[in-house]
Order: sequence, then structure tokens, then C-alpha cells
Amino acid sequence: MPPAADGKSFRFQGKTMQPVMSIEEIEAFLETDFPQIHTDGRVFEVTAVRPGEIDMVLAPSDRHLRPGGTVSGPAMFTLADVACYVAILAHIGPVALAVTTNLNINFLRKPEPARITCRARILKLGKRLAVVEATLFQTDAEEPVAHAVSTYSIPPR
Amino acid sequence: MPPAADGKSFRFQGKTMQPVMSIEEIEAFLETDFPQIHTDGRVFEVTAVRPGEIDMVLAPSDRHLRPGGTVSGPAMFTLADVACYVAILAHIGPVALAVTTNLNINFLRKPEPARITCRARILKLGKRLAVVEATLFQTDAEEPVAHAVSTYSIPPR
Amino acid sequence: MPPAADGKSFRFQGKTMQPVMSIEEIEAFLETDFPQIHTDGRVFEVTAVRPGEIDMVLAPSDRHLRPGGTVSGPAMFTLADVACYVAILAHIGPVALAVTTNLNINFLRKPEPARITCRARILKLGKRLAVVEATLFQTDAEEPVAHAVSTYSIPPR
Amino acid sequence: MPPAADGKSFRFQGKTMQPVMSIEEIEAFLETDFPQIHTDGRVFEVTAVRPGEIDMVLAPSDRHLRPGGTVSGPAMFTLADVACYVAILAHIGPVALAVTTNLNINFLRKPEPARITCRARILKLGKRLAVVEATLFQTDAEEPVAHAVSTYSIPPR
Repeated sequence: MPPAADGKSFRFQGKTMQPVMSIEEIEAFLETDFPQIHTDGRVFEVTAVRPGEIDMVLAPSDRHLRPGGTVSGPAMFTLADVACYVAILAHIGPVALAVTTNLNINFLRKPEPARITCRARILKLGKRLAVVEATLFQTDAEEPVAHAVSTYSIPPR
Repeated sequence: MPPAADGKSFRFQGKTMQPVMSIEEIEAFLETDFPQIHTDGRVFEVTAVRPGEIDMVLAPSDRHLRPGGTVSGPAMFTLADVACYVAILAHIGPVALAVTTNLNINFLRKPEPARITCRARILKLGKRLAVVEATLFQTDAEEPVAHAVSTYSIPPR
Repeated sequence: MPPAADGKSFRFQGKTMQPVMSIEEIEAFLETDFPQIHTDGRVFEVTAVRPGEIDMVLAPSDRHLRPGGTVSGPAMFTLADVACYVAILAHIGPVALAVTTNLNINFLRKPEPARITCRARILKLGKRLAVVEATLFQTDAEEPVAHAVSTYSIPPR
Repeated sequence: MPPAADGKSFRFQGKTMQPVMSIEEIEAFLETDFPQIHTDGRVFEVTAVRPGEIDMVLAPSDRHLRPGGTVSGPAMFTLADVACYVAILAHIGPVALAVTTNLNINFLRKPEPARITCRARILKLGKRLAVVEATLFQTDAEEPVAHAVSTYSIPPR
């Protein structure tokens, strides 16, 4: 039986995955254990935690911008990588240190020199590997600016 | 402004993309112009066409199965590739022949030896390149069995 | 210090990796444990085993060809996947069953309807994950027809 | 006929691709047209240009390092992306501005907090798309620390 036509029927996460950390707990953990994400100022902010997914915003500083007025590729890579890491963290708690093993990113259109939201959705949360999908977008009405899928190795818990 | 928490607010496609072919028109085109997908019998079926996305089902035959009772990796690759191609076809019409240039696939869990639905969603439909995301799943309540992102080169129209 | 300009200085594999199976042992193992690769006749053949890499040839049958005279994408995917699997097998022996978790393939140019050689080179052979690169080509003088990188999960040994 | 066993027989590039810029010309072009790569000081240096490939070294500064003593993922992503871009630039000249459309990176082992060499090798140099492979390594005798494959869209020339 194919899923319902509303595009929501395989929102499997709500049934099987629940976050175990709040936004505040995640931000506090990043502060102490992952301070390097604040090297360029407080540009990354977790704005939502939901079953199976999180949202993170990049408020770009000058060093994330490029001549001509756009956000750099490495800045978008970093946003996708950190957001996917946080999605896993939010669901397994601050006990293990997931390590990125693979990240595939498609740059879809040139972003405006403005905030980018990354929605990171967990595709698989296994004992050894997690796979997370990330969509980066600026406003609701337009195509995403980038899309990434990444794999994390999870140490024995 | 981050998107709404219901996970639907950046369903951009409905605003900017509309399919130009029906299920019947797509099936008729595949029949005449892409007969090789029926080499192993009528195992691929388009079950839905919506703005920005399509669903395709693989009803696996013996040759798509593996000892131990699962669907083979190449069968899932083929489903993802054909479904992404059909998503583009449905939105640009039977005038151009898109060619796969890149496909990245993650195998997430071992499928049952049963039907697999692939939902292919267009991330970018440009003049020269299209990028499509595909999620393969068997039932609503579980994690997907595989996930792919692919790029197609679109010839000058 | 950058490596020597002859392009050979980081042929690291010769120093750290040695195959533990011969071509004949690999073919015999595939025969009994992986018979599905011969579903379409004996189209895959291991032609070389070297430290850190193997060569496998696909002699395409009618079902691997496409109208217009080329080798199909799924046939090249299967060649890359099987060759990478065999590269790992050749170096860890027939004790564990590696499972593909990710495969990224670039289709570079349209192949002739003829034999394709896949050279699969191990990039990492860890306890839990192996990463293998595959280059598919037809003749020495031309660009490759495709290139893939894949990851395999290795069960506890 | 499979290629010769010395691993060199499909060094196709030497036959079909020749660089059109020297190291000095590349460095001068980056200086004026791509100054953002020097935002963190002169950390990137082109060390070799050969038919079909180039070498680029990252001499990491504090901001590329991580607590515990390693080079960050975003720093390796940036090195791979810039090196692949430079490989194309070196072969088509400073006339067109290639744009990254896809980058797939595998992180293979934790690097030492030291120089990383990236060897970027062109797999395809077409009119519209180029595909480049990048291997990141620190010393000759060991496995690479990362490996990437990226695609660039080349504007009409």
C-alpha cells in the first residue's frame, strides 16, 4: 500500500524516535564540549527540536560571506555538519561522541547574504551508524539553497 | 524567521512546480521510449504524481531478491534512479532526455522481500541540472530502507 | 613535504596491506557464497589482485546494454559495488560479510557497448568500516566512464 | 584487455590533458580573484601542477585545529574544494568561473595537527561539468586522512 498523498504518512520518526535533550540542554552542552563552533561568534543557534529532527540557524558573519554577496560553501558545509551532529545528540544524549564519516552536499542555488535555516532529519539511528539528511533554506517560498546527507559513526555505548 | 514547527512550511514545490504529465501519460511514455525498465516484467509502477514529487513502487521479482530474503542493492539503486528520472519527466514533459550524472545512495536497513515504495522529490529543477531526493520505504511506521540523492544533466531545450 | 611528482609516492597500500586470497580462491568463494552475481551468466571476472586493490571486468550481456548502444547505469553500479566488495574480501578473507552502507557514483561519459574494467582500491580498512574507491574504464587512453566511492560495514570479527 | 599491473596504465590524463597555467600564474590569480582563501592567513599553497592533477598543501593555523589535536572537518572540506577548483582552473585557464555543485567527502582517519597535502585529479573535464577526485594525506606511508569527489558546473565559454 502506497503512503497517503499528503506527504506525511511516513513521518516515521514521531512513532519511534523521541528527543532526550531540550534546546537549552543542547546549547549548554555545545558551550562546554564543542566550543569551537563559537570561534566566529555566536552564529549557530538551535531553534527547534522535534521527534527525529532539529532546526539550526546560521546568522552569517563577514567571514561566512563572499564577494558578490553570498554565503560561502564551507559555511554551508559547517552548518549542515553541525546540525546533523546536533540531531543525533538530541536523540541519544550527551554520552557518546559521534564522528562524521561521510558527508555528501549538493549546492542548489546561490544564497542571499542572510540567515540560513538547516533542518536536519534522522534517517537512521543505529547502534554503530546514524544517517541524517539536512535541507538548507532561506525562505519558505523558494527552493532550498543546499541539501546534504551525512553518516556518523557512534562509539560503543 | 525559522519555518513553522509542523514540518510543512517549506513545501516549496507546491508554490513553484506543477507536474505537466499524468500517471497514464508517464506510463505510456516509458512504454515506448524506455522499454528496458520492463525487461524483468512489469515491476515498476508510478502510483502518484504531485507537485514536486512522484511515488513509484517496485514489486520485486525473483531476480531482485537475495538468498536470506531481501531486496538486492542494485534493485534499490534502479528504483531510486528511475523514480528520480520520472519525477523530472513529470515536470518538464517528454521533450528532453535527462541523463544521470551522480547518484549517492545510503542503504539504511535490510528490506523485507516485498514491495518498496520510492518517493522522489525534486530539490532543484534548473535549466541544465536537476537534483532529486529519493526515500525508499516499505511501511509507514518504520525507518526507510534506503535514501538517495541524484543529479541529472538536462540537455538544451 | 609534498609527495614526489611521479604520482606514486603515496601508494601506501603496498606498505600496509596485503591480499590474503588469490584470484582462484575469490572466484571459488563467490561461486558458493554469492551465486547471485552469476544470475545473468558469467559476466563478472576478477582479473587481478594486488596489495590494496583488485581489478574486475564486466563483459556485458544483452541485458546490460541499452538501446543506442551503451552499458546501463545499474550494470555499472553493480560492477562498482561487487568490485569494492571483492577488494575487501581479498584483504580480510572469507570470514566476514561486509555490507554496503553508502555508494556514491559519478557517470562520466557514455560507455561503448563493450567490456568495462573496474579498478577497486581500498582507501580505509578499519575494524568497523571500509572505504573503497572504484574507477571504471574501457581503454587506457581515454577518460574513465564512471567513478564510485563506497563504504562497507564490517561485522565484528 | 585489462590494464597493466603496475597501476599506471590508465594515467589517461597525460595523453589528453595539459595544464595551461603555472603555479605562479595560479597563485597570482587566486590573489586577485579569490582573496577569501587567504582570510585566515596564507595557509593554502599550490605545490605542484601536472597533467590532469595538482597538489595543494594546507598548513593549518589555530582556527583549523580542534581540541585534542586534530584538523577540523570544515578545514579538510575547504582544502578539498579549493584544490579541485584549482585543478580545473589550471587546465581551462582564468576565463571561466567554475561553481561547486556537489561534493562528497569521506573522513578516513583523524589527522595529526600538521600539514595536509591534497592531490586533486581530474576525472572529467567536459564543456558543462567537471568531476575531480581529491585525496588528502599527511605522509607517504599511511592511509589517506580523507577523500573527496566533487562536481563543478562550468559556465559557457
